[in-house]
Amino acid sequence: MHILDMQWDKTMLNQVKKTIERFNMLKNGDRVLVAVSGGADSVVLLHVLMEIKDKYSLDIAVVHLNHSMRGEESDRDFVFVKNLAERIGVRFIGKKINVPEIKSEHGGSPQEVARRVRYRFFEDVAREYNADKIATGHTLDDQAETVIMRFIKGTSLRGMSGIPFVRGKFIRPLLNIKREDIESYAKANNIKFVEDSSNISTKYFRNKVRLELLPLLKKYNPKIKEEIARLAESASRDEYYLEKEAEKEYKTAIAGSTIPLSDIKVVFNLEKIKSLHTALTTRIFLKAIEHLKQDLSGIYSYHVEDIIDLIEGSAPQGEINLPMGITVYKEYEKLVFARERIPVPKSFETVLNIPGVTSIDKLKVQIKTSILTVSKSGEFLYDDNNIAYFDYDKLVFPVMARSFRAGDRFTPFGMKGSKKVKDLFIEKKVPFYLRRSTPIIASGDDLIWVAGIRRGDKARVEEGTKKVLKIEIIRTS
Amino acid sequence: MHILDMQWDKTMLNQVKKTIERFNMLKNGDRVLVAVSGGADSVVLLHVLMEIKDKYSLDIAVVHLNHSMRGEESDRDFVFVKNLAERIGVRFIGKKINVPEIKSEHGGSPQEVARRVRYRFFEDVAREYNADKIATGHTLDDQAETVIMRFIKGTSLRGMSGIPFVRGKFIRPLLNIKREDIESYAKANNIKFVEDSSNISTKYFRNKVRLELLPLLKKYNPKIKEEIARLAESASRDEYYLEKEAEKEYKTAIAGSTIPLSDIKVVFNLEKIKSLHTALTTRIFLKAIEHLKQDLSGIYSYHVEDIIDLIEGSAPQGEINLPMGITVYKEYEKLVFARERIPVPKSFETVLNIPGVTSIDKLKVQIKTSILTVSKSGEFLYDDNNIAYFDYDKLVFPVMARSFRAGDRFTPFGMKGSKKVKDLFIEKKVPFYLRRSTPIIASGDDLIWVAGIRRGDKARVEEGTKKVLKIEIIRTS
Repeated sequence: MHILDMQWDKTMLNQVKKTIERFNMLKNGDRVLVAVSGGADSVVLLHVLMEIKDKYSLDIAVVHLNHSMRGEESDRDFVFVKNLAERIGVRFIGKKINVPEIKSEHGGSPQEVARRVRYRFFEDVAREYNADKIATGHTLDDQAETVIMRFIKGTSLRGMSGIPFVRGKFIRPLLNIKREDIESYAKANNIKFVEDSSNISTKYFRNKVRLELLPLLKKYNPKIKEEIARLAESASRDEYYLEKEAEKEYKTAIAGSTIPLSDIKVVFNLEKIKSLHTALTTRIFLKAIEHLKQDLSGIYSYHVEDIIDLIEGSAPQGEINLPMGITVYKEYEKLVFARERIPVPKSFETVLNIPGVTSIDKLKVQIKTSILTVSKSGEFLYDDNNIAYFDYDKLVFPVMARSFRAGDRFTPFGMKGSKKVKDLFIEKKVPFYLRRSTPIIASGDDLIWVAGIRRGDKARVEEGTKKVLKIEIIRTS
Repeated sequence: MHILDMQWDKTMLNQVKKTIERFNMLKNGDRVLVAVSGGADSVVLLHVLMEIKDKYSLDIAVVHLNHSMRGEESDRDFVFVKNLAERIGVRFIGKKINVPEIKSEHGGSPQEVARRVRYRFFEDVAREYNADKIATGHTLDDQAETVIMRFIKGTSLRGMSGIPFVRGKFIRPLLNIKREDIESYAKANNIKFVEDSSNISTKYFRNKVRLELLPLLKKYNPKIKEEIARLAESASRDEYYLEKEAEKEYKTAIAGSTIPLSDIKVVFNLEKIKSLHTALTTRIFLKAIEHLKQDLSGIYSYHVEDIIDLIEGSAPQGEINLPMGITVYKEYEKLVFARERIPVPKSFETVLNIPGVTSIDKLKVQIKTSILTVSKSGEFLYDDNNIAYFDYDKLVFPVMARSFRAGDRFTPFGMKGSKKVKDLFIEKKVPFYLRRSTPIIASGDDLIWVAGIRRGDKARVEEGTKKVLKIEIIRTS
């Protein structure tokens, strides 16, 4: 390494340290999960965090999700990251899922599905391992690309805010660093990483932006990436403030109505809504929709414009239909957001055929079980949200599948003590009408799996396990 | 005209009417100046306003500024618009200036200088003719281009808000209409317009955006222009709300200080500033700078970031220098924005040499006068902010040049009654330190010209004028 490289190298490291301090990303003694894909960004992130590990007394683990989206290359990356973690002596937590096979509840491109599944996995692991932070390797380039993509597709201030430096447990220490600087840092410090072949195809929109549009924009302004990152930062400040103000007014606008908040209706005092500035009401409307559907996909700014038109119209009554079964209507002094009431399935309880297939027709679900013999350990490391493995010999038979009952409790995997299943649903944002459609697997008095959502701690596969029961949920609709 | 054309034609007209109503652009009986360049957009705007003239009982006049930036083509456009106005029977108010020769006080490209001069001219004419509104032909394409240009150069929420539908007297009834729809409308209704050759060169950044970048972006999203216009609209709502909140807090943050607001210092209560969200303080800082300099050119978002860093730093004192001679310093419980005190020139008074040149050395100004003979009327229609023409025979001699005195009053051109010169300075946002550098031309007891800013009504050149006194201000530094 040349002296010049070291000088330079220090510059980037110092910039990252400054970002960490500025956004209070780390506290002394934090347990940090580092999300490592194997690419330059996340490998350098791991390297940087190892550099400052002692300063903050960090407890670092590496987490990796194999999306099976690039065949053998995906498996190669998995092994690369696992070996890297072993070499530097930190714990590795990996999982393999098959994104191309996952049918998303909300639709979306494979990239979007992969993203959703990945974040869910990171959060689950963080909960399981009691991690304080989850660090991801997003760079200033990711920031600029994200904002440009949203700008092109159509967005509002929220979208212009881009990727946050900190959101919940997630921290992005490299978000102020350009990718080229990260690559130079890797080179100067002899850090190895893998190349992601999907990055150099123009198959995906992000890659088009990266390889086709950004170089053109750079001709207009060489500092384009930095300027967009700055815009994102000021936009996120503005959005945060407006969100907080809207939050306050949301509560008073509901309080002004005589009808309480329910899971199928949000009723506002129309006069109160009319007295507020549209900068706040537009955000209040999104809150109401989020309350009803836990999700804003399919809702665009022109829907919000429609609601404004409805309010400002002179007729005392009126109604508009939004996607996802949301209806907004005004009725004299009230403005109502409602969603259709989805029939809740009747409760069910059935003994699982082991081995074999059990159909639960009213849920359009099949539960397939099989008995496997353990040949080597670690075999059941990879799994899927719809598959779970249990130590056959620790189960109490018959194993049952049944619907959720008020008061259900279980011990989640990796935890001691018990937790309400209802709280798990709330944490996972499972809508009310889907809770009764979720099969719960019981073994004796214990709930061993809230299928597709979280497995229990009972009957873990561990050193010494001889026979394994594999349970798989297959949705047939 | 085909029936199909007429159908279609009505659609655009209805869209414009909707925009006019939605933004309350017109009141019954409004006097409207229509800014017509001669291009399709502004000519169609004039046509549309003539269509709804009777509905609103509008009094319409056409205003045109010849920037002399495209040689003969500029003069051709002038004549085209003048003839158009005559043909449809509305008053025409035209002026020719030489933008390439104007040295802008703040610098900037010829386009920026032209824009500044043009708006100032429109405002002056509106004041002179007591117009209620000034309509400009900005389209949805202008909106998208403006926002994209700012996005590329670096901006904040304020910049993303784009061109406002309404700002003061200015209204933009076509801001929701695409240029292609305007051109089709012109074709369907057989409306003639002139082509601006600068539009089809890629000489200027806006044209590059229009001809090179937008077509590429359209491949990513065919509705890109509409989406950007929507972003601008929601951004302007958010910005308006944040501005209002910042305005309130600006006042309380100053009130919290024991030192009164002055023209060279804005003193904030630091604790109060620290208690506010950065979404507001960033805007408060810009207000302070605007108070001191009447202008934010040269101030970028990284300057605002520097001020935030200054405040958040742990040292009780500190100072940073911004462009335009602004210093920001914190001093224990105070945060101070200050500009250097510019020495005010001593007062002066001198008789003008007629004809001849009079030098006022301390101002670095020469005043050149000449006596002209009138051959045909309308000759003195074109003028320049630094040149004024007077009826020689109506003047009282000697004609004097002197500095501003508290209490000075005059009768502005086209008005009856008198007005304080001080109020004119305030209206025109002439900073305190420049007021004493402005030569005021007096003839007997009357002030006939606040040079470079506004001429008086006395000694107008009119029908019957034989001899004209031309006075020209030449800045020599």
